[in-house]
Formats: sequence, C-alpha cells, structure tokens
Amino acid sequence: MAFAHKSLLGIAQLSTEDILTILSVAETFYEISERRIKKVPTLRGKTVVNLFMEPSTRTRASFEIAEKRLSADGINLSPSSSSTKKGETLLDTARNLQAMHPDILVMRHRAAGAPHFLDRHIQAAIINAGDGAHEHPTQALLDAFTIRRQGMPFGRLNVAIIGDIAHSRVARSNILCLTRLGANVRVCGPRTMLQPGLEALGATVCHRLDDALDGVDVAMALRVQLERFGGEALLPNAREYARQFGLNRKRLEHMKPDGLVMHPGPINRGVEMDPEVADGERSVILEQVTSGVAVRMALLYLMAGGSPDSVVKES
Amino acid sequence: MAFAHKSLLGIAQLSTEDILTILSVAETFYEISERRIKKVPTLRGKTVVNLFMEPSTRTRASFEIAEKRLSADGINLSPSSSSTKKGETLLDTARNLQAMHPDILVMRHRAAGAPHFLDRHIQAAIINAGDGAHEHPTQALLDAFTIRRQGMPFGRLNVAIIGDIAHSRVARSNILCLTRLGANVRVCGPRTMLQPGLEALGATVCHRLDDALDGVDVAMALRVQLERFGGEALLPNAREYARQFGLNRKRLEHMKPDGLVMHPGPINRGVEMDPEVADGERSVILEQVTSGVAVRMALLYLMAGGSPDSVVKES
Amino acid sequence: MAFAHKSLLGIAQLSTEDILTILSVAETFYEISERRIKKVPTLRGKTVVNLFMEPSTRTRASFEIAEKRLSADGINLSPSSSSTKKGETLLDTARNLQAMHPDILVMRHRAAGAPHFLDRHIQAAIINAGDGAHEHPTQALLDAFTIRRQGMPFGRLNVAIIGDIAHSRVARSNILCLTRLGANVRVCGPRTMLQPGLEALGATVCHRLDDALDGVDVAMALRVQLERFGGEALLPNAREYARQFGLNRKRLEHMKPDGLVMHPGPINRGVEMDPEVADGERSVILEQVTSGVAVRMALLYLMAGGSPDSVVKES
Repeated sequence: MAFAHKSLLGIAQLSTEDILTILSVAETFYEISERRIKKVPTLRGKTVVNLFMEPSTRTRASFEIAEKRLSADGINLSPSSSSTKKGETLLDTARNLQAMHPDILVMRHRAAGAPHFLDRHIQAAIINAGDGAHEHPTQALLDAFTIRRQGMPFGRLNVAIIGDIAHSRVARSNILCLTRLGANVRVCGPRTMLQPGLEALGATVCHRLDDALDGVDVAMALRVQLERFGGEALLPNAREYARQFGLNRKRLEHMKPDGLVMHPGPINRGVEMDPEVADGERSVILEQVTSGVAVRMALLYLMAGGSPDSVVKES
Repeated sequence: MAFAHKSLLGIAQLSTEDILTILSVAETFYEISERRIKKVPTLRGKTVVNLFMEPSTRTRASFEIAEKRLSADGINLSPSSSSTKKGETLLDTARNLQAMHPDILVMRHRAAGAPHFLDRHIQAAIINAGDGAHEHPTQALLDAFTIRRQGMPFGRLNVAIIGDIAHSRVARSNILCLTRLGANVRVCGPRTMLQPGLEALGATVCHRLDDALDGVDVAMALRVQLERFGGEALLPNAREYARQFGLNRKRLEHMKPDGLVMHPGPINRGVEMDPEVADGERSVILEQVTSGVAVRMALLYLMAGGSPDSVVKES
Repeated sequence: MAFAHKSLLGIAQLSTEDILTILSVAETFYEISERRIKKVPTLRGKTVVNLFMEPSTRTRASFEIAEKRLSADGINLSPSSSSTKKGETLLDTARNLQAMHPDILVMRHRAAGAPHFLDRHIQAAIINAGDGAHEHPTQALLDAFTIRRQGMPFGRLNVAIIGDIAHSRVARSNILCLTRLGANVRVCGPRTMLQPGLEALGATVCHRLDDALDGVDVAMALRVQLERFGGEALLPNAREYARQFGLNRKRLEHMKPDGLVMHPGPINRGVEMDPEVADGERSVILEQVTSGVAVRMALLYLMAGGSPDSVVKES
C-alpha cells in the first residue's frame, strides 16, 4: 500500500500516523549511509528535479545525496539558471518540467504556498524544501527523527524553540510536528519575533529564556538572520540577543540533565549559542544532519510510490 | 550502420532521409519516458559534456534528462564557471575538454558558427544546442517530431512561423527543416524583424497575420525578446505587438479547424498569444517539451555511434 | 594493503615511494578513458563531495569525469551556493558535510592550509585541489605522470619552471614532487616573482630564460595572472614579459633536442609561449589534461581505501 499523500507539502497535512510512518521508513534507510557501499537501486530510473529558487547548500546537498544513494536520477535547477529570469511564471516553469516526466519535484521557493499551488497543477510528487516563512517539513521530520533516535518518547516530551519564531518556517513546521506527536512545545524569543496566534498553533509562549528552558528535554535554537539586527530592525544587536536568548552552559542547567541541544544550522556561534554548547555533549546538531539524509531518502521513496510496509533496500 | 554525420551542427547539413531517420529513432525512445523505470543502459560509460555558454534552463534540463535516461555520464560546464573568464579561447577550452575524452559535446554559444568551428578541431561529436541567431537544430527536430506525432503528413503541411524571424535561430532551423520535409512555410512579423533572403530559404513572407494564418495546419509563434521593445527599438511596445501579431481565439479561426499552436517557450503570455490559446485544445506546446527529451535521446544515441536500424532500449 | 595516507594534502607529505605508487596506479587507470565504455564500478556507492570555494573549470571537470568513470556519486558545492555566504565557518561547513558521510572531500580553497586544517577535524579523506599559493598536488602528480609516460627517467631529468614562481601553488608542488623523484629543477622568472627560500626547496634559481633552458628535458611554463601587470604591479606589461620569459621556437633550441614543453593551462597565448610552441610537436600540454583524469582516478581510488596492489578495473 502506498503512502497516503501524493506530495509532501507541509506538516499541516500529515496525521500522526503519517508522521510515524515516515519516521519508521527513515529508520530503515538510516543504516544505508553507514555501509561501505552507500547505495541501493530502489529509485533506479526515477527522475527527481531539484528546483531551488532560493539559495541552499545543506538542504540541497542532503537531497542530492539522498537521491544518489537511492540511485535516482537528479537534475538541479537553480534560480540563476532558471527561465524565471526570462519572465516565465512559476506555473509555466513547472508545467514544462512536468512535460519531461519527472517523478518528484523537490522545491524551495521564497513564496509561502508555492509548492501547494504547483501541486494542484502537475502530476509529479512535490516535496516542499522550504516555502517562504511558511513550512519546512523535511526539517521538522528530521528533527523528530533525531529526537526519537535519542530514545525520547514524544508523549512526555517538553521542547523549547528559541529565536525568531515569527519569520521561521522551521519553527512553524516543528510546532506542528511535535504537538501532533504529543509533545509540549514552548516558544521563546524577542517580542518583535513572536507573532500572534502561536497558542492557536499549540505552543506556549515564554518571554524569558530561563522559563522556556525550565525542565525541557530539548532546546531547539533557531538561526537568527543577522541582517535583522540594527537600525530600524527587530533587535538592537547580536550581543544583546546573545545575552537574552543565547544558549550557554549555565543556562542549560535549567533543562533536564540529559536534555538535547538542537539547531537547524548554520549556527551563528556566540549568538544563538556558545561554541561549547554547539560542540558540547548534549548537542545533537550534527546528528540532525545525518538524520536529514535518512528522512529525505524515506520521503523520496514514499513519494515515488514506495510502500511503507516493504522497503526494499538491498544493493 | 552508423548515422551519416559525426556531429549535429545544423539542419542545413541534413538530408530529408537524415531527418526522417532521427525522427524515427526518436519514436523508439519516446516511450522510455513513459515507463515506470525511465532508464536504459544504452549510453553507459559514455561521457557527455554540456557546455552552455549562454544561459538555458529548458534545453539544458532536457539534455540532462535525456543523458540520464540513456545512462550516459553528463558533466555540466557553464559560462560562470568557465575558463573563458580567464581569457582562454573557445578552441583551447574545447581542446582541453577533448583531452578528457568525452564522446559528445552539447554546446550553446552566443556566436553563430561556434559549433561548426569546434567540429573541425575536436574528435568528440558536437550537438549544437543553439549558436547565436544561426541554428537551433534540436528545436526544429523536436518541432517536426511533435507535428508528425499529431498525424500530420509533412508533404501537404502549411506552417506559419510568427514573430522576430530575423533574430531567431528557431525560425531559421524550422524553415530549413520543414521545407526539406516538403512543407510550405510562411513567415510573418513586423517589417523590422523580417530579414532579406527569407524567400531564398524557402519561406513565403506575409505581413498580415491573418494572411499568414489563412488555412494553415500549424501556427508556430516565436518568443519575443521584450528588450527589443521601446525607445530606438524594433517595435513600439508589447501591446502593439500583441495587437498585430499575437494569437488569440478569434484569429485561430483563420487556420484549419484542427490546426496546431506551437511555441518553443518560454511564452510571454498576452504578447505572443493569449493564455486561452497557450492552454487551449489546439496547443501542443507542452507536447513539444516532451518530444524534446525523446529527440535529444535519439541524437545522443546516434552521435555516440548507435545504429539507426537496431536501437537497443531494454533496461 | 591500503595507501599510507588518509588524505592527499600536499606533495610535502609524500615519500618517493608514495609518489611512485600513485603514478603506478594511475597507469592502470589511464586506459579506461580510452575504452569504448569508459566506466568501471570500482567506487560504486562511494560519495565524493567536490567543494570548490574558488572558481575552477578544468580541475573540477577533471575530478568530475574521474568520479563518474569510477562510478562514484559526486556532489558539487561551489562558493556561490555555499553556506559560507551565510557566515558559516569552513569548519562548520565541513563538519556538516561529514555528517552526511561522504567518503572523500575534494576541495579548493583560497586559504593556504585549509585542507590540512579540515583533515584534522573530519573523517572523510581530503584531496587538496589547490589551497591558495601553497600546494596543488594533483597537478604536480599529473605533470610527473606525463613526463614519465614520455619515457623520461626522473633520475637524470632537468626541468625548468618558468614564470610567477612566488605566487604559484603549481610551482611549489612541482618543485617538491620533481626533486623528491630525483630530478634537478631550475626556476626562472622576474625578480619580483621569485621568493626567497627557493634553494631551500631544492630548486636552482636562474634569472635569464636562456640559462634556465640550457640543456633541460622539460620546460614548464606557468600561467601568468594578467592582472599582475601594469601600474604598481609586479611587471610592466605582458609584452615585456613575453620578450623576457616567453617560450618561442628559437629559445627552445637551448633545450635538449627532444625536450618537452608543459603548461598547467589555461595558456595566455603570446605571453607565456607562442602559439607555435603551444601547439608544436614538443608540447605535451593536452597530454597533461588526459593524464589528469587518470591521476585523479588513482587518487580517488586510493583515498577510498583501494589497495595499490590489486586495482580492480573491470566493467
């Protein structure tokens, strides 16, 4: 039986069961990246187009590696080489790609909802690799996967998400994903970076970092866009941000003793967290990156029509 | 027996039989892109260099997909990363590539004749993916392929090519290809966009769109370079262009009832044609894109030395 | 038995035996690029990241082709698409890449020592594809390979390296490599381009080109950065450089009768050498390019853990 959705547009569309299915399939793909021969023929002959209309290194590399380890044929299209320069609409670009019969379109776009729009018009499965400030579902899924691999049950989990909540697709997808899995989610950041309606999403708002961290299992710091600092900006400066919201060894004492530190990367060291926290024994930040490849392999597999019940992964 | 030409430089070099051979081989490759596993091992171990010295999304993506579906090893080199920045001549670039023993060089270059020049100096087969305002033979071949798949015999075909004929390599290659196949070709556009000598190429010149469309089987609109409008330019503005030369539902009534609308893309909607024409039941514009992959697979196959008589396409 | 080094950081780290092993393995890979099917499954399932933080066409293309001919999975990351734009440190970039479990990281970086620094922090093997003005070991190895294929024994070899010695990683790696192999190396160039300490590296300094060329087996011209000419620059102009240090037919008479002309490319024709020299019968410049693919295949093979004693290269 195939996965219940044609495309992965956002966490909002997924049931708890959907999420657990993805995590479970990702588990079976995880060990492929640890093999000597890191490749299975699972998606041989499938065409995946990576359409990144916003710059990306990590997410694109993670998808590319996932595609190659599954033996899919990946094609990269990026904004600088795109027809959008010539004034073509996104829909025309997508229809043209569709006419080349890709199986999956992995896309990142600055406009919220762009993947949802395309999904109504093309046959290929779409995987949303980030749409504006809306969703970044593969990040939330790899975060959940990382937490679960640390042996933490979601039902009793307390998570603090810290930073520029209002402008973060990572925050939004994580709030949706973690609450759906039964976790309690607190959000914390400067008042200018906390939009109204966070409670309706299922999160508890904290204004002081120590309150947010109190007894949590996971502290997830978001990347701060440094260009938001200064002048008429949302924050006076990076130093003040670090003083109020940066994670340091002392502040981690508020968390549970075995609590995890996470960050979607890339880190501004000394802003969102001290280097000794980023590289410390509680940090699972690099484990998140490793998980990303496994989760994206699982999603590519499911979007290509693979059955969650009988994952074939022999080389 | 191998194909009669080492390289595909332009339609001008091809006989009627050559063109029909290419279309026939493309037919056998067409269905591969409709399979569940869209890949055959035909060009395994062949190296194809995609040297695009002018920006391109569609044509490059089409070639890349064609290469991957044939299991060729494709390498992309584009102007931004090219040694031409360092002042190297095109010939030195090509000789250096040749020294890495590629089988095929797919190239786009702003200078007319660039592929012909290189072809005299390197061993690899060259496929011209557009040279200046000269030729774009793979586009003309995919257009002919699309027309033939619609069941239209070339011998009784009437085609109108509309737009900036003078600056269009698509127009030039299509005039050459369609007349060689026995079709009657009319060209139509602003006087500033019709160069002398079109009759010598085999085309009939029309100055009014309704005359050009009268009773034709195919209306092929060319992309207008919007930067050509305004000021000292060739045309007063896009609105005036659309009024005189844009395809709309009413004007299509001059065509044969089952006549086709074509465009090489990307479309300036509302300029070259109304959206209802672009997306209408007569439009085969997306079918052109699909055909492009099949035609390019055929050309890669033939340029790699494949026999037109015994295409191997089992996976 | 595996190769003695985890990474290839520079010639400085290699013993004579190491160099001879690499050349010997390269010999076995050389003929793969001359086959009809230019591909072996040797590195199937291995992930290679090509991290080029300085622009490169040839070296990157050479590595990419080497990777594909070995069936490795190559991922390209270049500065324009890199997270370093977002202020991420090189170490964080590398740690993140490492978390995706690549087998080999091929890297070019403007900073001398960057690959050595990363090598201490990540598990993947690193191949230095050029670090600042420090080393370019794969170039030196392919140069040695080219010389040896011409049947010249290193022990009696006299080589003149000509040009901007001070700013050239190619010169530095070649001096180290050729002297380690037992050759005598002379360097020659404008006084502003000869740094102190060249004798300590093992080279003899000549100020007149005719002295440098006198009786040598190999004349290796370096690429001159044209931006170094004029104004406050190191050289008055290109014409004066060509007059004093450019290779021409007359000057080659100082060399041994069967002496070779080499250049790492791209050539400034008429500056470093006359076209008739670049394209003449003594030039092995394009043979260097061909050798590059073989040497890089050998290095990728060895860095992936392949045994120098039993190279498997059946398709």
